Amino acid sequence: MKPVKVDTPAVLIDLDIAERNVVKFQEYCDSHGLKLRPHVKTHKLPRLAKFQVQQGAVGITCQKISEAEAMIAGGDLSDVLITYNILSPEKLTRLRKLSEKVSLSVVADSAVVVDGLGNAFENARLPLAVLIECDTGSGRCGVQTPSQAAVLARQIATYSGLNFAGLMTYPPIGEPTKVAKWLADAKSMIEASGQKVETISSGGSPDMWHAHEIALTTEYRIGTYIYNDRSLLEKGVCTLSECALSVLATVVSVPTENRAIIDAGSKILTSDLLGLNGYGVIIDHPNIVIDQLSEEHGRLVSEDPIGLTVGQKISIIPNHVCVVSNMVDSVVLTRANEIISFEPVAARGMVR
Amino acid sequence: MKPVKVDTPAVLIDLDIAERNVVKFQEYCDSHGLKLRPHVKTHKLPRLAKFQVQQGAVGITCQKISEAEAMIAGGDLSDVLITYNILSPEKLTRLRKLSEKVSLSVVADSAVVVDGLGNAFENARLPLAVLIECDTGSGRCGVQTPSQAAVLARQIATYSGLNFAGLMTYPPIGEPTKVAKWLADAKSMIEASGQKVETISSGGSPDMWHAHEIALTTEYRIGTYIYNDRSLLEKGVCTLSECALSVLATVVSVPTENRAIIDAGSKILTSDLLGLNGYGVIIDHPNIVIDQLSEEHGRLVSEDPIGLTVGQKISIIPNHVCVVSNMVDSVVLTRANEIISFEPVAARGMVR
Repeated sequence: MKPVKVDTPAVLIDLDIAERNVVKFQEYCDSHGLKLRPHVKTHKLPRLAKFQVQQGAVGITCQKISEAEAMIAGGDLSDVLITYNILSPEKLTRLRKLSEKVSLSVVADSAVVVDGLGNAFENARLPLAVLIECDTGSGRCGVQTPSQAAVLARQIATYSGLNFAGLMTYPPIGEPTKVAKWLADAKSMIEASGQKVETISSGGSPDMWHAHEIALTTEYRIGTYIYNDRSLLEKGVCTLSECALSVLATVVSVPTENRAIIDAGSKILTSDLLGLNGYGVIIDHPNIVIDQLSEEHGRLVSEDPIGLTVGQKISIIPNHVCVVSNMVDSVVLTRANEIISFEPVAARGMVR
Repeated sequence: MKPVKVDTPAVLIDLDIAERNVVKFQEYCDSHGLKLRPHVKTHKLPRLAKFQVQQGAVGITCQKISEAEAMIAGGDLSDVLITYNILSPEKLTRLRKLSEKVSLSVVADSAVVVDGLGNAFENARLPLAVLIECDTGSGRCGVQTPSQAAVLARQIATYSGLNFAGLMTYPPIGEPTKVAKWLADAKSMIEASGQKVETISSGGSPDMWHAHEIALTTEYRIGTYIYNDRSLLEKGVCTLSECALSVLATVVSVPTENRAIIDAGSKILTSDLLGLNGYGVIIDHPNIVIDQLSEEHGRLVSEDPIGLTVGQKISIIPNHVCVVSNMVDSVVLTRANEIISFEPVAARGMVR
């Protein structure tokens, strides 16, 4: 196929592949009775969020309020979950504002967070849905035990502006039984005190084809699946032909027989290694390693003669696509290697 | 001192410290007869570039054309070096346009790059200054031997639109004698064929206080010194009170006695480790390690009870400040912890 004609470095999205990925996992979720709630952090594009909802997603997941604001401004989204403990007065004011535009839910894992939400939503027209974030083994945020979840559920119920909506977890990889037991215990304890656990939300791309194995899960949150990346490729979760995002770069120097330098560095590929060797896989040159990045240079090394020339363009599947989307003001949307648009990454850099 | 009142996460710049750092290194360069040409990649702010020039810098260094365009648009800059092999027709057109606005120089390390520049600057009103990039041991771009440099210098001279301006290197750390010999050899060989080597440009923050030890150097390029960071702190190049950039974050969860989670992840701190343990040092809590980043969460762990509470704000000196500047649309400029401005990072994301 002829290469996309665009100056480098550039982040390219093959829309055909991205759309196929969305449809394929939607079908999987449908066949297992799971609601799908994609995380927009991977693409940060309202256009693709809308496509995900059109294909059957119940809504979207965001990580920060600003991300939700950008996606909602992009239009046509009615259901948003922000999977984050929201704390400051500034953010709580913005959260309440957003809740008047869409069906909004958030998470909480401590009394301090619940109190903040409860006070901010006093006298709200519609109560804010709150899920309890549960640490089922990932070791990040989340209550540590099912009984802590039950205590928090009761606390949520004391606020007229909040509605206890269920449980949320980002589960450890490959431990569905353990996670299911944790969630079942929490559900029983909460139901024993007369509260209903409507939603049990799990997620994660590495275990995406095992989503149905965590019993009781009603909803799945997933981001990377729309583009896929080298981390999922090397885990066998996807194939190379299912990778929708690539970085197009130009060889700017071939200083020695075994070394070449490209115009994509950590400002495009990022330093995320995710346990892998090197900073991405080069399509058609799988034996060349991107062994070092400075901000604007990527260093390529090879045991055999590297076989690249100055000016040559190469395509790279990065280790981690979500962070790559965050590095550029716009991505190049393509179909069959023709440019469809230079799409502004509307939710790039949204950290607050 | 009272904390800066701003929602988190936020990138804060203490202008007093940054200005002192600029003045201190300018004095060092002046005392050693070195021209200083700061690299703007660290701050990406026209305001600070202008301050650097006002204090005596001969001009600025940029890595990409878009970076130079953004800085020149910010005003009052008349001398720009782009230390990059510039190749595509699109970029060469932009380069020629820029050369009409400021005194412009670039680097080249191959015949292909020199030919491209030479053709693009045919019949230019003023010739483009070209330095030859030399790999004196860093193993990135650059000609490999002094005789290759001499060949390239002669090639540059064949183009009427180009002016051979000298040698440029990003030297390996701690090897001034080896680097000096390399450059001296190249200079002799070039002068032997009747060409003048006006500029010998070296650089780098880790060796900044040894800049004068590379004999023959006429000009020093340096970026990080204006803010400093944990990488320089741990090398003993600066002190904590000389670190001008910090990330203000809020503790959003304290799930266990030894773990806390903050609202700054890799989208602010970046995954750059630079050989260090953890993703930054927390001011006032040096024993707590930021051991894991996801995009929007930083995980803090501690052997002793962590002693942080939900809602508490902490300040972090990141491993690498240049990449942090690139993550946010604006930084918070402060003096004595009062906000001076929310300064747009004009050259953020400029990769082409």
